[in-house]
Amino acid sequence: MKPLGPKVVALGGGHGLYASLSALRHVTDRLTAVVTVADDGGSSGRLRRELGVLPPGDLRMALAALCGDDEWGQTWRDVVQHRFRSEGDLQGHAVGNLLIVALWELLGGDSAPDGAPGGAGPGSTVAGLDWVGRLLGAHGRVLPMAAVPMDIVAEVRGADPARPDEITRVKGQVACASTPGSVLGVSLVPADPPACPEALAAVDDADWIVFGPGSWFTSVLPHLKVPALARALTSSRARRVVALNLAPQPGETDDFSPQTHLEVLQAHAPDLRVDVVLADAGVVEDTDALDKAVRRLGGRLVLSRVAADDGSPRHEPARLAQAFVQIFSD
Amino acid sequence: MKPLGPKVVALGGGHGLYASLSALRHVTDRLTAVVTVADDGGSSGRLRRELGVLPPGDLRMALAALCGDDEWGQTWRDVVQHRFRSEGDLQGHAVGNLLIVALWELLGGDSAPDGAPGGAGPGSTVAGLDWVGRLLGAHGRVLPMAAVPMDIVAEVRGADPARPDEITRVKGQVACASTPGSVLGVSLVPADPPACPEALAAVDDADWIVFGPGSWFTSVLPHLKVPALARALTSSRARRVVALNLAPQPGETDDFSPQTHLEVLQAHAPDLRVDVVLADAGVVEDTDALDKAVRRLGGRLVLSRVAADDGSPRHEPARLAQAFVQIFSD
Repeated sequence: MKPLGPKVVALGGGHGLYASLSALRHVTDRLTAVVTVADDGGSSGRLRRELGVLPPGDLRMALAALCGDDEWGQTWRDVVQHRFRSEGDLQGHAVGNLLIVALWELLGGDSAPDGAPGGAGPGSTVAGLDWVGRLLGAHGRVLPMAAVPMDIVAEVRGADPARPDEITRVKGQVACASTPGSVLGVSLVPADPPACPEALAAVDDADWIVFGPGSWFTSVLPHLKVPALARALTSSRARRVVALNLAPQPGETDDFSPQTHLEVLQAHAPDLRVDVVLADAGVVEDTDALDKAVRRLGGRLVLSRVAADDGSPRHEPARLAQAFVQIFSD
Repeated sequence: MKPLGPKVVALGGGHGLYASLSALRHVTDRLTAVVTVADDGGSSGRLRRELGVLPPGDLRMALAALCGDDEWGQTWRDVVQHRFRSEGDLQGHAVGNLLIVALWELLGGDSAPDGAPGGAGPGSTVAGLDWVGRLLGAHGRVLPMAAVPMDIVAEVRGADPARPDEITRVKGQVACASTPGSVLGVSLVPADPPACPEALAAVDDADWIVFGPGSWFTSVLPHLKVPALARALTSSRARRVVALNLAPQPGETDDFSPQTHLEVLQAHAPDLRVDVVLADAGVVEDTDALDKAVRRLGGRLVLSRVAADDGSPRHEPARLAQAFVQIFSD
């Protein structure tokens, strides 16, 4: 029987977190994902507006990444990831989003605590996700970074192309991720949301915390703007690894070098110490500059081949898993 | 270990079939429901129009009636039966309807045979229902009465209250079930739909076939208007039991006596022989007349207390189960 592996908490959202979880599930059986809940677009945005619930999409993707390897797990993964295509009301809705929301409504009952979304208190939010995890035979647990729906607000230079030097505030994940200007930093509304107690406990108890890869401002940094979660991430006895992206992201991080990503991270969480920064050797142009930025965070740089061979800025799960194995064993 | 019990096929739809399945699941482990697929109202009607699929609602209810007794089965039953309540696009949709349709789309792929609804051929229709059955830990199998969506057409006297003697045709399950006139008979569009091969095989192989209770014209009789299924029901070596309703249904069977129900059944399937008719002693006013109608069908009358005590026209599952045990053992 293989050992359980280290206790790992992976932070992020969307495709980046899907990539890290797809790798980490092969590295450890003690895996917790803590997921951004600030999406306001697509199926998630519509559910959030229509039913007043947490946006479920990033939670669903994380659960799908952890699905069981057997026919059961794969089939239900395909079901939760399935999207309706029509010219009617259901167009674009992911089935798993609807399933998660249904469990929240069902387990939350009618007597929701004040301010809780969609009749689901923090308890039923986690219980609902755990039920979908059981359905999928998930190799790990998926938790929200906060117990209420969040909005991302970005400080952007040149959001209006006609005024390239003007700094304005852009609100909403979709607007922030697609702004034509340069994002300088992000904050959250509400500014001090209730954290998810199970997420705080997982961070506190972790051996390793993994930041990224993913949309830097809208998926990776938001966790550090949830005050209670930021305190837990900073004070945990866990070691911290930052997995850098393979390419800048159009809109959010145009022209960002790897070291710029780290500088932005430090600016958003000045007290955060990092033990390891993982980057792909093939995409780092100035190793010295990156190494300096890593040392400013208190860590060491690990260069490893983690990109897929197809030239896309996509992590290859098996390579990323191998890199994590190496890092966790050092 | 309890014996498997007889091979039973239960026909119907909606709340009536839910009642018979809730009883029969305690009587046998070899249970197949063959379900009306002619609904055009509510969540099912919208899905049918938006996505071109079989109306899933009656199939969902039948699956829910068969759910496992443990926490797993009960929780997923509650999820599939859960309905969204909002002022938006999802209002009224049952989660299980969406789940069933997603499985049909997923398993049907993009290469649907000509004329198959929503990319789901007959094979994927049954496979999708079997997957939801596995999710629920269902005590039995649920199959559609036909492989394509159906419309019920009723001959109605006085559909227009201003012309009480005029006989007209009313189309659609909702319209037929709620007409202010008297329904004289029903037929289906298309008139000769492809049957579900697994349903034909189950009927052929059954020890007992159970008709009703349920909405007589829109849930119980439609099976007899699917030619291939009607032939199988008539020629099967199985014995046949008709479970009568506890009260006439406003709209469909206003003022119908129990014997009228049987006369209508005989009119829709002249070749059908019936072995047992089950009725509640407390609601039969003219036992002699009913007994005569039963003998005209070739059967015997069983009077048993099967109604709930609350005065509603609702079968008590434990009593109905006991009555079936008695009938099957005679």
